[in-house]
Amino acid sequence: MADSNTIRLRVFSLNCWGIRYLSKHCRERYAMIGELLSREEHDIVLLQEVWSEKDFLCLKRKLSSTHPHSHYFKSGVIGSGMATFSRHRIHDAFLYRYSLNGYPYMAHHGDWFGGKAVGMVILNIGSLAAHVYITHLHAEYSREKDSYLPHRVVQAWELQQFIRHTSSGADLVILAGDLNLHPQDLGNRLLRTYTGLRDSYTETAKFDGCEDGITLIADNPFINPKELCPFEKGIRIDYILYKGSGRVSIQCESLSTTKGSVPDHPFPYSDHEALSAELQLQTLTQQAGGDETRGKLAELVDIVTEARTEVKVGLYCAERMRYTAARTGVMGLALLLLELAIAAVPWLALGADQPFPRASFYLLGVLCFAILITTFLLYIFYTMEVKSLQGAEDQMRLAVGSLQERLRRFPLAQPLNPLCRPPDRQDPCPLEPEE
Amino acid sequence: MADSNTIRLRVFSLNCWGIRYLSKHCRERYAMIGELLSREEHDIVLLQEVWSEKDFLCLKRKLSSTHPHSHYFKSGVIGSGMATFSRHRIHDAFLYRYSLNGYPYMAHHGDWFGGKAVGMVILNIGSLAAHVYITHLHAEYSREKDSYLPHRVVQAWELQQFIRHTSSGADLVILAGDLNLHPQDLGNRLLRTYTGLRDSYTETAKFDGCEDGITLIADNPFINPKELCPFEKGIRIDYILYKGSGRVSIQCESLSTTKGSVPDHPFPYSDHEALSAELQLQTLTQQAGGDETRGKLAELVDIVTEARTEVKVGLYCAERMRYTAARTGVMGLALLLLELAIAAVPWLALGADQPFPRASFYLLGVLCFAILITTFLLYIFYTMEVKSLQGAEDQMRLAVGSLQERLRRFPLAQPLNPLCRPPDRQDPCPLEPEE
Repeated sequence: MADSNTIRLRVFSLNCWGIRYLSKHCRERYAMIGELLSREEHDIVLLQEVWSEKDFLCLKRKLSSTHPHSHYFKSGVIGSGMATFSRHRIHDAFLYRYSLNGYPYMAHHGDWFGGKAVGMVILNIGSLAAHVYITHLHAEYSREKDSYLPHRVVQAWELQQFIRHTSSGADLVILAGDLNLHPQDLGNRLLRTYTGLRDSYTETAKFDGCEDGITLIADNPFINPKELCPFEKGIRIDYILYKGSGRVSIQCESLSTTKGSVPDHPFPYSDHEALSAELQLQTLTQQAGGDETRGKLAELVDIVTEARTEVKVGLYCAERMRYTAARTGVMGLALLLLELAIAAVPWLALGADQPFPRASFYLLGVLCFAILITTFLLYIFYTMEVKSLQGAEDQMRLAVGSLQERLRRFPLAQPLNPLCRPPDRQDPCPLEPEE
Repeated sequence: MADSNTIRLRVFSLNCWGIRYLSKHCRERYAMIGELLSREEHDIVLLQEVWSEKDFLCLKRKLSSTHPHSHYFKSGVIGSGMATFSRHRIHDAFLYRYSLNGYPYMAHHGDWFGGKAVGMVILNIGSLAAHVYITHLHAEYSREKDSYLPHRVVQAWELQQFIRHTSSGADLVILAGDLNLHPQDLGNRLLRTYTGLRDSYTETAKFDGCEDGITLIADNPFINPKELCPFEKGIRIDYILYKGSGRVSIQCESLSTTKGSVPDHPFPYSDHEALSAELQLQTLTQQAGGDETRGKLAELVDIVTEARTEVKVGLYCAERMRYTAARTGVMGLALLLLELAIAAVPWLALGADQPFPRASFYLLGVLCFAILITTFLLYIFYTMEVKSLQGAEDQMRLAVGSLQERLRRFPLAQPLNPLCRPPDRQDPCPLEPEE
């Protein structure tokens, strides 16, 4: 198989769970990860939850000989937590921060402070331009009552938009990270169908790892199996996705995951399992034809419509919350004004003999002040959320309209690639996942 | 000149100054703008500062027959203010919100609440895919003491990144908007040199408008000439930029600006002048050769280095401000603890006969509380600013390194296009402004 046109590319992805002083055995685990990476010498390493830049710099020093090129994506209050190491020169880096990412007052979930984003690095592999994406979407804290679902759907929407629009010039596209999405979740279908990215787990010729490719396993000592409920064994939420282009075809030769324990070490690398994919790139001399059908286009319409419904639900909730914040704020203001009126006009108090008690007066003032500040901040925050959801919904409406129009024009008997611009470019479709 | 391969495209751009209840004659001016647009029937209309969605919807109704396609970009607390109307079908829309955009506590400047961004719409013009960008950068409130300069440089950096990475598949690229940058400002040079976008004012065959193409003129009744100081006549900060591709060559046939007053109306359309460009697109059968030189690459290194210095200055200021916020917060906390200690241990007060006065006690408590809240929010905000500036600086460092390496490899005697991927694609450069 291997000839001069074939390149082997090894990609590694791991959510490192690297919260200093909070994650268990953080320092030791980073040392283990560093060891693994310098031993294995993957071409591209994509790490999530490297929350501390110090840890990134420490890894960078350790990997300076095996992975001379690296980039750490900065975003939000704490950072995006995303780091990439490469054996190939990184030429360009770009970051897109998701417009929605949880709530600042849900501090115990912490996602908002992380500034979740998708990062892109462009590197040359031989004569090929590889666009490599890394991301980490908002966590799912409850499968049944997932209040963050609209946020995650918008993130998946923006992720596919970003990848689609920035990868037209790429010979190959790789996306890895913790998507916090099950394989058949809406966001995952949206991402894969729109971009044409293929899942290395379902496509691989050889697999060695946890059953069903799960990456958050019940056997991991850092995991509380109750949190995985109702999935007893675990869930698959970490991915390495890829696609080629007219110039390169890609096959996934093998995929492996770590399996919880690490030989000669008392604990695993992280609470997530690591993914390691070996991709075989074959440079093509001929432009590859499209392999998509009318059905694919119809499927896309369905998925985007489903996503739009989900976003509308989120929009309804956000608008309701904003209304509640505004109402509470008005009540706080009314209370404050009432209090000021009482202070200004003493006879309004319960009587000259019983003046309004001073301590209560000031305490009430503090309360009103706190209510006003909090509701004002919440109102601003919910307004931003509403705008972001409306923006995503507008984009989705536009996309559905455009897809439906193309579907109507699509000849029923001709199963050509509707997502690709045809060779004569008579109909340049800006929505194509592959060029 | 005009043959079957030639398409004429008319582009319109205006900063509408549409702040409801604050901007003078807002409703009347929108009516005038609507009239102008439905009469002139430009192919693409790009409006900024349409802050109210109601005004957008009103324009949309008015232009439904001449411009059936439209998109309003939502972002931030108030919105991005950006709207686009088109005679050609809009297939896709995408928004990139700048990571930095002023300060929320500078409410009188208001930029932060606007959620400044760059919006992209993709439309088909005949068989051509046009990527049309609209943006509005942070305003410059003082030429001498411009505290927002690092923010505007980062915005220009992100703008060029976004355009460069999302336009590889485009046949033609158009960017219009209020850049709040003079023609030779750092951000402007960064944008034009990196993307290869051409300025319709300097390139046009025919110009009809204000002297030197200025778009913020002293003669405009809505403008306070003092604010333009030291530029007596006015400044040029609104632009229509464009570039073609290997498939299309573009010439600017004519450019016109409004000149302050409008016939039969008592006041102008806005405080900015409108731009109207007529572009001639010529579809090419041959791939156009590169026309860039080694000098261009060296110029780019200089500009990015200058931008990096500017960002570093901003980073220093932001870090200093964050430190001040932290220090003030610690002082507030110490005061609060002291007060609580006084309350808990009565003998700490000035004496049993003179207990700590209640009113002062509560007032001091409120003060401490306010200081703590404010400094906490400021600390979070400055941390986000620091991260964004660091992120931009990292990207710039990477870019300079990559450019310098290509400069070193560039043969001195061979003035080929260093920013273009050569036809044999032996060296896929991800930084090319044109493909």
